[in-house]
Amino acid sequence: MKDKPKKPQKLKARLPRGLEDRGPAAINATREMLEKIRAVYELYGFEPVETPAFEYTDALGKFLPDQDRPNEGVFSFQDDDEQWISLRYDLTAPLARYVAENFDTLPKPYRSYRFGWVFRNEKPGPGRFRQFMQFDADTVGSASPAADAEMCMMAADTMEALGIPRGSYVVKVNNRKVLDGVREALGIADDGQWLTVMRAIDKLDRLGIEGVKQLLGDGRKDESGDFTKGAGLKDADIALVVGSVGQGNTPVDPRLRDSKIGQQGREELDEIRRFVAASGYGEDRVKIDPSVVRGLEYYTGPVYEVELLLDTKDEKGRPVRFGSVGGGGRYDGLVSRFRGEPVPATGFSIGVSRLQAALTLLGKVDTRAEFGPVVVTVFDRDRVADYQKFVAALRSENIRAELYLGNPKNMGNQLKYADRRNSPCVIIQGSDEKARGEVQIKDLIEGAKAAAAIASNQEWRESRPAQFSCKENEIVAKVREVLARHDVKWG
Amino acid sequence: MKDKPKKPQKLKARLPRGLEDRGPAAINATREMLEKIRAVYELYGFEPVETPAFEYTDALGKFLPDQDRPNEGVFSFQDDDEQWISLRYDLTAPLARYVAENFDTLPKPYRSYRFGWVFRNEKPGPGRFRQFMQFDADTVGSASPAADAEMCMMAADTMEALGIPRGSYVVKVNNRKVLDGVREALGIADDGQWLTVMRAIDKLDRLGIEGVKQLLGDGRKDESGDFTKGAGLKDADIALVVGSVGQGNTPVDPRLRDSKIGQQGREELDEIRRFVAASGYGEDRVKIDPSVVRGLEYYTGPVYEVELLLDTKDEKGRPVRFGSVGGGGRYDGLVSRFRGEPVPATGFSIGVSRLQAALTLLGKVDTRAEFGPVVVTVFDRDRVADYQKFVAALRSENIRAELYLGNPKNMGNQLKYADRRNSPCVIIQGSDEKARGEVQIKDLIEGAKAAAAIASNQEWRESRPAQFSCKENEIVAKVREVLARHDVKWG
Repeated sequence: MKDKPKKPQKLKARLPRGLEDRGPAAINATREMLEKIRAVYELYGFEPVETPAFEYTDALGKFLPDQDRPNEGVFSFQDDDEQWISLRYDLTAPLARYVAENFDTLPKPYRSYRFGWVFRNEKPGPGRFRQFMQFDADTVGSASPAADAEMCMMAADTMEALGIPRGSYVVKVNNRKVLDGVREALGIADDGQWLTVMRAIDKLDRLGIEGVKQLLGDGRKDESGDFTKGAGLKDADIALVVGSVGQGNTPVDPRLRDSKIGQQGREELDEIRRFVAASGYGEDRVKIDPSVVRGLEYYTGPVYEVELLLDTKDEKGRPVRFGSVGGGGRYDGLVSRFRGEPVPATGFSIGVSRLQAALTLLGKVDTRAEFGPVVVTVFDRDRVADYQKFVAALRSENIRAELYLGNPKNMGNQLKYADRRNSPCVIIQGSDEKARGEVQIKDLIEGAKAAAAIASNQEWRESRPAQFSCKENEIVAKVREVLARHDVKWG
Repeated sequence: MKDKPKKPQKLKARLPRGLEDRGPAAINATREMLEKIRAVYELYGFEPVETPAFEYTDALGKFLPDQDRPNEGVFSFQDDDEQWISLRYDLTAPLARYVAENFDTLPKPYRSYRFGWVFRNEKPGPGRFRQFMQFDADTVGSASPAADAEMCMMAADTMEALGIPRGSYVVKVNNRKVLDGVREALGIADDGQWLTVMRAIDKLDRLGIEGVKQLLGDGRKDESGDFTKGAGLKDADIALVVGSVGQGNTPVDPRLRDSKIGQQGREELDEIRRFVAASGYGEDRVKIDPSVVRGLEYYTGPVYEVELLLDTKDEKGRPVRFGSVGGGGRYDGLVSRFRGEPVPATGFSIGVSRLQAALTLLGKVDTRAEFGPVVVTVFDRDRVADYQKFVAALRSENIRAELYLGNPKNMGNQLKYADRRNSPCVIIQGSDEKARGEVQIKDLIEGAKAAAAIASNQEWRESRPAQFSCKENEIVAKVREVLARHDVKWG
């Protein structure tokens, strides 16, 4: 017996961390979201394009818009010809490769959209997954600020198409060139010092103007006593930075006027402002905001960010400010890596998984379980083929229906199964009913209501019985009545 | 100057082999297919579930239904805790993991469906990609042949929902247990010899009965003179095999009656046959076919295969018999790897990419390019914001529209762009029109027809002008007329 194979060790069923399975409610909500976003992008004249889940590592490069360090967190493996391949970490780098590869045959400007899963080999956390979905739109081949303005308006329209009311979101727009002008005026040569300045500006929302001033100067001690070293600017320079990122009609500091790049940035922002206003989008929807710092190492012109303004609560009742659900900007360098010539491009990316979480918190996603199928029970296992005929009759009228396929020994288990599937009703036919050519229809929704109802409702309940019989050839009509009574969608 | 960074080498934009990008026509066709399949599966009471793109390698195992050798061709990499992770190579292995992990909370039987990309690290070829899409449905927790019968009927309904007429497809059903009975009757102990027998049976469609007999005996020489060694069976044994896989009402060979497993297989097939017939599905749709050999190392009971029967032609006019576009069977062993107890399961998988290719060849996929957006041209670049208002007016009536965002210097380029986007019409407003409060609408579809029309059509052309002017506030109404005239969908 020594050749008898060992009993294999029982495997543990588990997912690698940072990944999740998705059930019907989440899947259906995502599908509805994607369709709404898609409709807006189509309306704007964008067309779909899809690239595969992985690419040559060198073609993807290391461009992550929402990080200020080159990303190491990609999943990579070697192909059998030893070339390195990586799972895509966003949808922009593959698009740049696609556009470069098909440059001569694409219409230009090339407006396109795509959605799909992206992968990051990073430390997962609450709401942070290693696989998540993005929905991108990009215009390649137009240097016009009108292309950026269009992205911002499309983002605003998308939020409203998803049910987010005007006033509960805002698309904020800035221009990296304006910030570059500030740097020029300050004469900051050191990249590290400049990064500290930008990080300080980025915290305006969270820390307020005084906190930012401290971070621009010597540094800031937070509530816990931790000290963050500042950028070491002098008071006059701090005033210049703070003035340049302020809201409203602050006059431009004379020191900024000498910077050509800064001046160009302000002109582009003015153009976007005029364009957006002419299209009828108020500042409540698209707003110039000089404090937006986004994708420090990545964007080359206008940048935009979509923020949800509503404070909401998470599942545990704690207050949550949702903040950014998407953003983008101009990235003129990405396609030119392949082309050796400048190729202007601007794009916008929605974090679908994150936006879906926001919509769920806002009550904009229908989280009620959908009704399951009508379940035809098996009373007599020799008559399964008869029961299947009832199922076929219901399906032929586009009513979701199924035969109970488990062990039919126990009718109680069959009813429990139907409850678990959230079935609106079940069909039962024992030998007595069969002899009369009838079936029993048990209305599970009514039954649940009846069970919960108080005694005084007895009369009402009797007029809408939770269980009744009908002729075999009336099944479809009677089930339809039950579905209509409870407003169950079908067909 | 020695610190000046070297100019980076220009990257080549290319995809790893066996991968493809997809454009609007393919994407839209896939979306329509998926929706049709989904509607059928929902009608049958199946519910969606999704798992991530990768899993622990040991959890996936090595189960490939359409190969008779354990698969080495998966993409794998090590996680940072050194555990091996693989991209999913099908949707069944991840489902088995999901069901095992959530066994206690799922309704049972558990009917579910899912579609998504799967990945195989194999040699790509024409129509063979390393990333492709599958659409699966599975019933876990039912040992009843009724569950298998349901899969077959659902497959048949799906083909018709996709526009494949009755008679142009067939779902063939067999049972591995019947084949096991043949093996028992023949007393074949050697796995290699048995594999040769099954491979011979699998070639019945292609080689006919005489070819199969040769492969069951000493061997077969094909047209090119290549010799394939046979299974070495004696004539009586060959007769038994051939009789057992034949069509129609051949009486069961007495030697087969002694095999319990074979008898059980025939009874299950009879049950499926009765069930399918009772549900009104004729043999033109679901047919018992004892010659179906599928997933040799994988399935444990009924197996089924969906074949397209139409001979068709490929792009080069060569005749193509499409053959299998999907299949499945009972795989009672897959979930039990995790559970240590038997968990019956049966499932069906459609090769979406392959079926889409078939539907395209059959002319069931609309391959006409969709119409692009209405293009509002830029005549005077200072008036871009005005033009944008026309765009906004069209979009607000759900008409796809866009502003030309390229360099507006040359109107000819703008019209070429509109042609390339397959735009139904363009809007032009120069200073003369502006002064009159008018715009020009150029009907590109009519224009193309007119250009192609012969002179005798002149009168007709004049009554349907390819270019006309209208008041600014009539743009939407007039564009609607153009779209309606050419049957362009909008809104």
